[in-house]
Amino acid sequence: MTDIVADNDEVNDDQEDRRLSASEDQTPRSFCLQSFVNLYGDEPHLSRFDHIKHYAKKHCGSVTFLCCLNIFLDKIPLLYCLKKYNIRKNLFGDIIAGITVAIMHIPQGMAYGVLTTLPPIYGLYVSFFPVIIYMIFGTCPHLSIGTFAVISLMIAQAIEGVVPLPMDMINNTTIVSNESNSLLNNEKVQVATTLALLVGLVQLLLSFLRLGFLTVYLTEPFISGFTSGAAVHVFTSQIPSLFGVKSPSRIEGAFKLPKFYIKLIRLLFYKINWISTAIGIISIIILFFSKYFNERYKSKIRIVLPCELILVIIGTVLSHFVRLDSKYDISVVGEIKRGLPSPVFPSLNSIDKLIVPAITIAAVSLSISISMAKMFSRKHGYKVSSNQELLAYGMANVISSFFKCYPSAGSLSRSVVQEGSGGKTLLIGGFSSIVLGSVIIALTPLFRSLPMTCLAAIIIVNLKGLFYQMKDFIFYFHISVLECLLWTITFTSVVLFDVDIGLYVGICTSFIINTIRTQKPRFVTLGQVEHTGIYKNVVYFPSAHQYSKIKVLRFDESLYACNVPFFKRKFYELIDIHLEHSPIISCREDTHKHADKFNFKYVILECSTFNFIDTVGVKLLIEIFNDLKRRGIVLYLSECRFEVRHTFDAMKFYEKTEFHIIYVTTHDAVTAARNQLNRASTPDHTII
Amino acid sequence: MTDIVADNDEVNDDQEDRRLSASEDQTPRSFCLQSFVNLYGDEPHLSRFDHIKHYAKKHCGSVTFLCCLNIFLDKIPLLYCLKKYNIRKNLFGDIIAGITVAIMHIPQGMAYGVLTTLPPIYGLYVSFFPVIIYMIFGTCPHLSIGTFAVISLMIAQAIEGVVPLPMDMINNTTIVSNESNSLLNNEKVQVATTLALLVGLVQLLLSFLRLGFLTVYLTEPFISGFTSGAAVHVFTSQIPSLFGVKSPSRIEGAFKLPKFYIKLIRLLFYKINWISTAIGIISIIILFFSKYFNERYKSKIRIVLPCELILVIIGTVLSHFVRLDSKYDISVVGEIKRGLPSPVFPSLNSIDKLIVPAITIAAVSLSISISMAKMFSRKHGYKVSSNQELLAYGMANVISSFFKCYPSAGSLSRSVVQEGSGGKTLLIGGFSSIVLGSVIIALTPLFRSLPMTCLAAIIIVNLKGLFYQMKDFIFYFHISVLECLLWTITFTSVVLFDVDIGLYVGICTSFIINTIRTQKPRFVTLGQVEHTGIYKNVVYFPSAHQYSKIKVLRFDESLYACNVPFFKRKFYELIDIHLEHSPIISCREDTHKHADKFNFKYVILECSTFNFIDTVGVKLLIEIFNDLKRRGIVLYLSECRFEVRHTFDAMKFYEKTEFHIIYVTTHDAVTAARNQLNRASTPDHTII
Repeated sequence: MTDIVADNDEVNDDQEDRRLSASEDQTPRSFCLQSFVNLYGDEPHLSRFDHIKHYAKKHCGSVTFLCCLNIFLDKIPLLYCLKKYNIRKNLFGDIIAGITVAIMHIPQGMAYGVLTTLPPIYGLYVSFFPVIIYMIFGTCPHLSIGTFAVISLMIAQAIEGVVPLPMDMINNTTIVSNESNSLLNNEKVQVATTLALLVGLVQLLLSFLRLGFLTVYLTEPFISGFTSGAAVHVFTSQIPSLFGVKSPSRIEGAFKLPKFYIKLIRLLFYKINWISTAIGIISIIILFFSKYFNERYKSKIRIVLPCELILVIIGTVLSHFVRLDSKYDISVVGEIKRGLPSPVFPSLNSIDKLIVPAITIAAVSLSISISMAKMFSRKHGYKVSSNQELLAYGMANVISSFFKCYPSAGSLSRSVVQEGSGGKTLLIGGFSSIVLGSVIIALTPLFRSLPMTCLAAIIIVNLKGLFYQMKDFIFYFHISVLECLLWTITFTSVVLFDVDIGLYVGICTSFIINTIRTQKPRFVTLGQVEHTGIYKNVVYFPSAHQYSKIKVLRFDESLYACNVPFFKRKFYELIDIHLEHSPIISCREDTHKHADKFNFKYVILECSTFNFIDTVGVKLLIEIFNDLKRRGIVLYLSECRFEVRHTFDAMKFYEKTEFHIIYVTTHDAVTAARNQLNRASTPDHTII
Repeated sequence: MTDIVADNDEVNDDQEDRRLSASEDQTPRSFCLQSFVNLYGDEPHLSRFDHIKHYAKKHCGSVTFLCCLNIFLDKIPLLYCLKKYNIRKNLFGDIIAGITVAIMHIPQGMAYGVLTTLPPIYGLYVSFFPVIIYMIFGTCPHLSIGTFAVISLMIAQAIEGVVPLPMDMINNTTIVSNESNSLLNNEKVQVATTLALLVGLVQLLLSFLRLGFLTVYLTEPFISGFTSGAAVHVFTSQIPSLFGVKSPSRIEGAFKLPKFYIKLIRLLFYKINWISTAIGIISIIILFFSKYFNERYKSKIRIVLPCELILVIIGTVLSHFVRLDSKYDISVVGEIKRGLPSPVFPSLNSIDKLIVPAITIAAVSLSISISMAKMFSRKHGYKVSSNQELLAYGMANVISSFFKCYPSAGSLSRSVVQEGSGGKTLLIGGFSSIVLGSVIIALTPLFRSLPMTCLAAIIIVNLKGLFYQMKDFIFYFHISVLECLLWTITFTSVVLFDVDIGLYVGICTSFIINTIRTQKPRFVTLGQVEHTGIYKNVVYFPSAHQYSKIKVLRFDESLYACNVPFFKRKFYELIDIHLEHSPIISCREDTHKHADKFNFKYVILECSTFNFIDTVGVKLLIEIFNDLKRRGIVLYLSECRFEVRHTFDAMKFYEKTEFHIIYVTTHDAVTAARNQLNRASTPDHTII
């Protein structure tokens, strides 16, 4: 590491005076990187082994029994909550919030239960068991775990894949006997619980492997596009129920949308039930109106009006006394068993067919839940750990799969209410479960006359939040082309194809977009802002000086394989070297172009933008250095980070080029170039 | 754009003196970005429409007939070559190179023809037609288009997918009649030509859409890993031929390697033909030896010894006179038709089954060929355009598909010989084709007694280059973990699964790696290098000063969705704010940790590393700014690029934070912070 700098001899002579000054009137001085590092630097070269030793020392140095116990207790955030619990401050709010959410859980649970093609009682189970377990392991008090529209739809798809509908039900020709129906339901419930077990295991595995960080790849535009697209599917799946068409609501097909709509329209034309439609539409209007009312007078009345529950009660009472089902042939919920299920080990029969849907559902459920939890944590300033959340979701799904539950997830609409109704701690879930438990034990048989169209109305109105998300498209459209593209591709592929295909398309698009972003960055010419050592883009700072015969460039991205060809083309373009051959039949205008070919003697590339460089990038810089040398041009680099210099070292960059081509700052490099030019007899100080 | 800077009033007073000076003894002064832009900047806000207008003006301003003609002629690089052709200088070298390559083409064409499961004559066709067409449209004189091992193997797989082997051939129980064999061959040839047509059309489409830039995603580690892995498959496919085992050489299977090897070993145990094995191994030894000889004495003798051709001739003569086929039951090439095929339109019967293999083959063939062409262009300094190359490959495949050719690609072994034998221009291909044409017309029947084991030996020896590539693994291992990972994943998935699955796995891995690279960048504390305005990582520059109560940080990557959680965690860690809650059972050591909690009053984040920022990143900065404000800490940003500021503007960053938090340089921000600290009565100049 000797001082090999040609024009830097003064630096060592007067080390007292080594301040970097940009003023024109002083003697120009410049720091070559090597001498700078020699003077000030101390670059430790830790081997990989040293790193591991260091890490082990830091983490295992103070292992005590207490620490181990704390690590274990750390996994049960409820304990912290209880330890710090302030009864006077929190209890009332938590109870109110718990009851409010429980009241929402009842109709939503039944509605989403129907959406999974299972009997509605199973939705209530999912509103009960997972909530208790999330209370123990979860970290976000405002997240309402339970049934969720998009997940319910995906469960319905998974069930259909394993338990196909019998032909007579599809053709709707014969009336299905109660017995065969309950057999079919049993089979479906088995599939759903297996699915919950698998989803839970996937989430637990991710948590144990501490792969919670993977959720960062599920970015906001992706989740927004995905859930908006899924909302379209949920909506269309509810149309037959709403219009009282007695037919399996979902029709399969690879290219889903067009086929589905044609069938749907045909069904609606022939088999519409006007009374069911009327009830459904009135329900929707009532719900919308009361939700608006709630929103409007939220500040004045503390307790939210339980509009959905009121609708359910009115609907049930009306239907019971008018005998809607027998007189007007309207589908109703039907007989519901009372009481909590006893624990049963989920069947493991169709595991092989369920693994792929389980992974998909696990991914969707955790991405939606975690993004919601993070949103609340930002708003209220508490910490949410992705790995702990994964543990909570996993435990919730695994344990509740023993109690005939299907996979659960956080629901946006309930979580917003849970947040708004004044609850502060994890105990909300406990109070909510107490209410739910009593309903399941005592009140479920009362709902037997509830018309299905009311449940469809509840689902449709609850989609409001997801549909409202579509305005994100406009937000991204204004701010970032690529994020907008990600949103659009995800949304369209979910709507046109299917929820799971859309999920994978969206994830692939995320990764591709991260690459595309670095493809064609700006490549700008810099100039010196007068009297300072600052170099700025000459387009935005037109007064910035460019010295003749010196070109200062900056490439606004790390240089690596995927943008190397772009860099090369643009680089030569910017320094006016034309690599292309002359045309076959020469046009005259082109000839004078080559006159000013060798305009520049020094090209300075500012590397402050290179956050990393790969082997292809280094090879290109070596190639360019040697090519420019042949043309009599000198290439200087400036402001290279340690990471980049490390790769240079590994690739033996300095052996293939020259040692002193790297300068500390751009200004140093320019000063060095100007000194060289001055020395070359022609005092060329003119400014372009 | 008024001057809203609090501590910057002096700037406007003495504008004469606005030089940036870092010296301690002068009055510290600092540039807030806004005032800096006001003073020097001029940020043009071009609308998207203006951009298009500008672009149209630039490109369509001077459209003349001559230009159009030139654009057309530009697509035929042979014309340039002929225009500039120097007979005295180039002709001799080109003829020698042409003949040398043609001599290599003959045995390789037959060998790779056999590898595709077609009769060997079709390999010779592929060595003839595509070469002529590439000569017209191609740009790289050293690239030898024709048969290539990996592509041949993939063609064999595609053919097997459409034309399954008859059961009796698989079980090898009966001797297949000549008639059924020729019928089968006809069918196979049809599939192969259809495949060539489709591959060509895919490549032409890519060329017309100017998607040649997509080849940048096929990075060097990927191609190296892929071809090395494919070489393993080519090698194993030749083992049965080499050992004289009369059985279909390839065995299908999703998880290929273990099954394949078990079957292979079983075959070898029972049906090995010792004479064939002996001939094969002797051939391999002779080839290796003569290749070594060629390499060694390359500089002394100009013409390369045609070792492969010699082996073929010796093999044929020996086999003919000893009657190897009838006496020792050794497979020979068999009857070969003489003459060139007349043009036939390829059959379009099994297009639907061939589209996916065609896309895969097109991708592999163009990535291998283009990467080779680029390698030669770097070495010899001529320009290779990916779009023009794509056009050339596409035309070669489409046109030659009418002449019973299967898909072609560049071959590494032949290209190296073509380069080494002194040829300089595209005419090499022409001379090579003249030789090949005469061989096909006159000499092919002579090869009927050539033992297959000799062809297997030729293929295996030619794999040397691809196997030798495996040392790339060690190269990448030393330089870049991620590139090494890409190589390994691609190689392993090709070897373990299959060539096409490996291709897709490798491409996905490339994209994922580009994202992973930006996940956990360095996040460093900066200090001022004494007497300069330069701020460097305090780990590598231990003498760099850190002012008390001021923390200067730099995050070595663009801030966007995928690294936002990491940024946040690390940021708070670096400024000693612990977001984690205290443990349930408090250990005593932890208590004193919180004493120095509010150590810093100013946090400065250098944003020179942000090449872009996305909406999530901006939201995080806003969140951090407001959180720090609540804790009584001020956040400054410095050195933000225009791109980043543009996103700030779009996200209304300044409305949600404060206007003057961005400074031009880090030094400006530090100076501003120190001024503020000084003003706050305590003259805190001490240096940590």
